Amino acid sequence: MDRKLLHTPEGVRDIYDGECSDMLMIQDKIHAKFRSFGFNDIITPTFEFFDVLADDISDTSAKELYKFFDKEGNTLALRPDFTPSMARCVSKYFLESDEPVRICYRGNTFLNTSSLQGKLKESTEMGVELMKDDSVYADAEMIALMVESLQSSGLSEFQISVGNADYYKGICDEAGIDSETEKQIRELIAGKNIFAAESLMIEKNVPEKYRDMLIKVSDFRGEAEALKNAADIVNNERSQKVIERLGRLYEVLKVYGVEKYVSFDLGMISTNNYYTGVIFNAYTYGVGDAIARGGRYDNLLGKFGKDAPAIGFMIVIDDLLSALRRQNVAIEKAKELKTIHYTADDYAQKLSEAQKLRKEGFNVVLTS
Amino acid sequence: MDRKLLHTPEGVRDIYDGECSDMLMIQDKIHAKFRSFGFNDIITPTFEFFDVLADDISDTSAKELYKFFDKEGNTLALRPDFTPSMARCVSKYFLESDEPVRICYRGNTFLNTSSLQGKLKESTEMGVELMKDDSVYADAEMIALMVESLQSSGLSEFQISVGNADYYKGICDEAGIDSETEKQIRELIAGKNIFAAESLMIEKNVPEKYRDMLIKVSDFRGEAEALKNAADIVNNERSQKVIERLGRLYEVLKVYGVEKYVSFDLGMISTNNYYTGVIFNAYTYGVGDAIARGGRYDNLLGKFGKDAPAIGFMIVIDDLLSALRRQNVAIEKAKELKTIHYTADDYAQKLSEAQKLRKEGFNVVLTS
Repeated sequence: MDRKLLHTPEGVRDIYDGECSDMLMIQDKIHAKFRSFGFNDIITPTFEFFDVLADDISDTSAKELYKFFDKEGNTLALRPDFTPSMARCVSKYFLESDEPVRICYRGNTFLNTSSLQGKLKESTEMGVELMKDDSVYADAEMIALMVESLQSSGLSEFQISVGNADYYKGICDEAGIDSETEKQIRELIAGKNIFAAESLMIEKNVPEKYRDMLIKVSDFRGEAEALKNAADIVNNERSQKVIERLGRLYEVLKVYGVEKYVSFDLGMISTNNYYTGVIFNAYTYGVGDAIARGGRYDNLLGKFGKDAPAIGFMIVIDDLLSALRRQNVAIEKAKELKTIHYTADDYAQKLSEAQKLRKEGFNVVLTS
Repeated sequence: MDRKLLHTPEGVRDIYDGECSDMLMIQDKIHAKFRSFGFNDIITPTFEFFDVLADDISDTSAKELYKFFDKEGNTLALRPDFTPSMARCVSKYFLESDEPVRICYRGNTFLNTSSLQGKLKESTEMGVELMKDDSVYADAEMIALMVESLQSSGLSEFQISVGNADYYKGICDEAGIDSETEKQIRELIAGKNIFAAESLMIEKNVPEKYRDMLIKVSDFRGEAEALKNAADIVNNERSQKVIERLGRLYEVLKVYGVEKYVSFDLGMISTNNYYTGVIFNAYTYGVGDAIARGGRYDNLLGKFGKDAPAIGFMIVIDDLLSALRRQNVAIEKAKELKTIHYTADDYAQKLSEAQKLRKEGFNVVLTS
């Protein structure tokens, strides 16, 4: 026998026993939370036409997609992310009315990374999208729902960083930096490569005043105070609008009672292709990366034919589960199994006992 | 905008609104039923090494797999079916002890068929496997669980056909037919191509007595009476054993009280590669194909290194849902949504109302 037959490909895995029941339990809790906020389920296919996931729509490089062909020769790709599929589906079915659309999903996403990176190549994600509502109340609802969803899984120690890359972009506008250079600087700053960012700005003749401001963006982190400091240094409308809106957001989050989980970080200038406004990531200890990520993407639906504002977030369930297990958080157990033993002689009687218990709601193994 | 962007690839689909909540509701009901019989969840990856799904293990032709490569150059394939993955996983983790293993799964399967066939290329399947128990009680438990699972979804009009290809194979042995010819005849009879089967048998010099018996196999259909008739015509031990075991199975199904859903069909001589004993398929009106399929596959685990008996079944959730909808069966609804409207002035008060209702278990949309 080929021993390889026993193994999963690298980067994907079997989940069983206690880990599996924990995995399903936290999904149920989060799903109930999504539903409680009035979100309705949508299921989209595991693969899409490659074009739906192309670089300008998805956050994922085409090189990291699993691509293959159908019998008609179309190029398909496993979804790396749900948002493009949700935008496609909502554009197709839900944009006739003006009412906000609240949808939620759960399923797996796929990234064809090199095994050397040690990342999971298949993850379970659950997320929500709130479309056709561009208000600050929508922003607050999403952040509050992220907080309550994580809490519902049992997680209590986490922090949500809230930013908006427009603050940084406003400074770039003010400094007269072209969009190509802006993108290069953003990538360097997002990668914490401040020295290279500074060199690039000198090379591009960015005035010292703005070089200092752009480098300083990452320092505006913390509670309401950080917003005040950030407001003090800018004179352009774009950046000021961001600060004003984040201030209002903070007020609404206080009404929700979730402000203690939130801190601002104006240095979060994602290289993500579709976010256009607020972005918010949840972090906890035991996992390096964000366990949940979200943001506003008011331009994405337009790529599918109809402009409409939208905001959403998703939770990486595998990462959340790792964090819960590392933090020794007790996850509610699935119902305990009862076992009834039979022999050929007493089978009818034992089966009848098992059936009775099952009707009463117990999980019962009947075995010899 | 490319209009194609709005569409899913052919053979896969978006599921939303009422259909989606029905889809999830029946999955929850069936999952609870699986759990009530003591089955534990397992999650395996959506793709496997191609070799795990190769022709001699899977029921699916390699041509109908979606195949692709990872960055290391391994050939991967989307699972067309869960059983090989379950066998792989159980062989890896659960074969140390002698206790029976009860596992269940839910997820999607993929078939790269031509669009001309009009089949779904991605389906949701839920299934169970009971390993390391070769008793007739295990056979009965699986059929009873299939019945109760379908009932739990709301389906009431269905029939489970139970067969065992060994009855037919026993006659072939008795007639001295070689295994290559047996396979050819089986494919013709399974395809209802009786004339071609007869011609082939004449060509291969199968005596008339056996030709008649083999053609007649398909006539042994119905309740206990069919078994008696089938027993009357055979003299070989292999066929007789099948009839004796099916008779005992019927007795156990009577103890379960599910015998009225069961009819025997000795003409079910599947071309499936891994079934070795009893096979059972559920049919209902409104859907042409079986909505649930199962059987005993005592040789499959051996391919992964350790011999152990096993029996399992799966339900094609998409097909079950189609049947329920065509039959106008009322599916329990998800909780109704309440809607609360706010203005900028009364937001705090309305949010507090919504939060209170959510705590009480209601699903509440808060909207302007």
